[in-house]
Amino acid sequence: MVKLEKIKEAQKRVSKVATKTPFAYAPILSKRFGCDIFLKKENLQVTGAFKIRGAFNKISLLNEEEKKRGVVAASAGNHAQGVAFSANYYNIKATIVMPENTPLTKINGVKSYGAEVLLHGSNYDEAYLFAKDLAKKQNRVFVHPFADEDVMAGQGTIALEILEENSNIDTVVVPIGGGGLIAGMASAIKQINPNIKVIGVTAAGAPAMRESYMLGKPIDSTEVRTIADGIAVRDTSKMTLDIILECVDDIVEVDDEEIADAILFLLENQKLVVEGAGAVGVAALLYDKLDINNNSKVAILLSGGNIDVTMLSVIIEKGLIKSYRKMKLIVTLIDKPGSLMKLTEILADASANIVQIGYDRTSASLAYGDANVSIGLETKGKEHQEKIRELLTKHGYRFYEES
Amino acid sequence: MVKLEKIKEAQKRVSKVATKTPFAYAPILSKRFGCDIFLKKENLQVTGAFKIRGAFNKISLLNEEEKKRGVVAASAGNHAQGVAFSANYYNIKATIVMPENTPLTKINGVKSYGAEVLLHGSNYDEAYLFAKDLAKKQNRVFVHPFADEDVMAGQGTIALEILEENSNIDTVVVPIGGGGLIAGMASAIKQINPNIKVIGVTAAGAPAMRESYMLGKPIDSTEVRTIADGIAVRDTSKMTLDIILECVDDIVEVDDEEIADAILFLLENQKLVVEGAGAVGVAALLYDKLDINNNSKVAILLSGGNIDVTMLSVIIEKGLIKSYRKMKLIVTLIDKPGSLMKLTEILADASANIVQIGYDRTSASLAYGDANVSIGLETKGKEHQEKIRELLTKHGYRFYEES
Repeated sequence: MVKLEKIKEAQKRVSKVATKTPFAYAPILSKRFGCDIFLKKENLQVTGAFKIRGAFNKISLLNEEEKKRGVVAASAGNHAQGVAFSANYYNIKATIVMPENTPLTKINGVKSYGAEVLLHGSNYDEAYLFAKDLAKKQNRVFVHPFADEDVMAGQGTIALEILEENSNIDTVVVPIGGGGLIAGMASAIKQINPNIKVIGVTAAGAPAMRESYMLGKPIDSTEVRTIADGIAVRDTSKMTLDIILECVDDIVEVDDEEIADAILFLLENQKLVVEGAGAVGVAALLYDKLDINNNSKVAILLSGGNIDVTMLSVIIEKGLIKSYRKMKLIVTLIDKPGSLMKLTEILADASANIVQIGYDRTSASLAYGDANVSIGLETKGKEHQEKIRELLTKHGYRFYEES
Repeated sequence: MVKLEKIKEAQKRVSKVATKTPFAYAPILSKRFGCDIFLKKENLQVTGAFKIRGAFNKISLLNEEEKKRGVVAASAGNHAQGVAFSANYYNIKATIVMPENTPLTKINGVKSYGAEVLLHGSNYDEAYLFAKDLAKKQNRVFVHPFADEDVMAGQGTIALEILEENSNIDTVVVPIGGGGLIAGMASAIKQINPNIKVIGVTAAGAPAMRESYMLGKPIDSTEVRTIADGIAVRDTSKMTLDIILECVDDIVEVDDEEIADAILFLLENQKLVVEGAGAVGVAALLYDKLDINNNSKVAILLSGGNIDVTMLSVIIEKGLIKSYRKMKLIVTLIDKPGSLMKLTEILADASANIVQIGYDRTSASLAYGDANVSIGLETKGKEHQEKIRELLTKHGYRFYEES
């Protein structure tokens, strides 16, 4: 594991630039699960994610000569911003290789810290190989996103902050991608109090580290696919795996539906924007994957908040349908003046707000003289939807629902 | 003004239940406006808004006999939750009158604290009159949302927290609806340091307090209409106006477009969900309505985060179009096999992701043999959209844009 001394030294450095993010009791979750739940809000960190801690510690430790030569990193997101920010702090030249399909907002985020951005490859792995090669050719330091002891020590400072705020915590829940974050945090925790349980959470679509942990040896995935892009890591690092095998008590997994629900829960109930990778811990809690009891005092790390708002919008829309606050109906009408008016009248009486409407009279499946109206409705819950269905049936409408 | 002593006493009570919310430096805003901007995050408060402070202080100060009789309040949102929470804490019977169109999530939020909910009237004013009458009939204490010194003293505790964290602040920016929040905060601030400027922000669609302030006497509005529902107050209270005239340095206003932009900014850059009323201060900053200079140290209050996710989704969608990350095109094609394929090929080459598509061959405005395709595209910015337009023109397409 990473020596506690190293993590404590990292804390002195990291605290110069990283915010000591809020660590707060979560009343709604605590009430719902009958124990004490606390959230560590690294989504409110400078650059929107914890990655600045590891990157800054690493770059701080470079010698003058290395600093002069500059650094290279590969990342599609949070690590890029962490490295760019830290290099900028020390006035070091930084080149970040990002996959070609990286959204412009992320590219601009990195550029705003003065780093050079090279777009290369169609995914992270291709960008990574290119960056490694570039660093070698130009004799510059490659800042690995996780398989580096100084980086892990930086991430471990989050655990110090949690335990400084509340030393009674008995379980700490941490997202796992490459494993640098949990390796650093678990190292700190187990050296401070080995009785505290450390639980990792992977995305079902990026199972490399969980499978490796179960088997006790590194396994790579053939492909990764998850909305938690921050932990979508394909290959397992032996360096982080060894520490995880030594210090982590269990690894559980959550799927994209569960992650999306957690993102929406945090948005609505905690007023926080949390990215997929950052929400896996809460997803694990919401879907009863954590072994907790009434006395548990659980710290869940929200590791970052850099989610595309387009994705957020999709998650909200889907979530509204799943939580009965929106429904989509296809109603068959007689295709004549007044038909639609009668239908909208019924829906207005039921206090259902129409937010979308389409009209189709030419489907092959329709009888001549009939038309299909597709309607998106805002509803107030399950009972309200049931009432709308009853009303439509009562008035003799044929309809089906789109989900 | 409200005596500082009263606000300090309120702080002792309020701190038992209210979170001392984060007060944090905002690097992106500070850099952009060349001064120091801090955000006070009351959206992260228990119940999602500051209102718990005033309600709890008020209810704490009731005598035993009053507590036994119970309380009544009227509110469409945050005040309702504050009163329900506080009454629940003291095991007091609470009845909250809410307008009939109140969303189910808000009703359930209030019910979850054990309060009784009565739905009455089509807007806040009708609910208010009904609740006042109910309190009188049942001889119960009516908890006013702002025109009450104990309520104002409770809200004033936010100012104490801000100045405890950073006594160098020279400007404090506060949302105004009924004026209880700014009256309490300005009272505290001016008694601690009269040199600190207090700036109020109203929504253009709810101008009562700003107009009253300008004229120096209470003016009611005939109607209010703004996405900042938490400050959509129609009538001016003389009690809060008098304090505001005494303690507030200026009142500026922002419109719904500006508020929506601020909500999106906070979502994307601060990872915070902030409701319309809570975002007016940042809107005023973003649209240069605040008189600040390079040395300014500005505290902006984000007063709450209770925004409907449906509204959030609309704000995101509109914001994406305004910030050139989405565009809607109507392209005229020749209605034959392969036409659409060629178009989608061109768009794919331009790395524009199609997220919506519609096909219309029957518009009266179309020539026979032509068809209109409406396409929603995800784009990477202004230049990218320009490139797409050029490509379509180059390939001979006729098209126009929907905004």
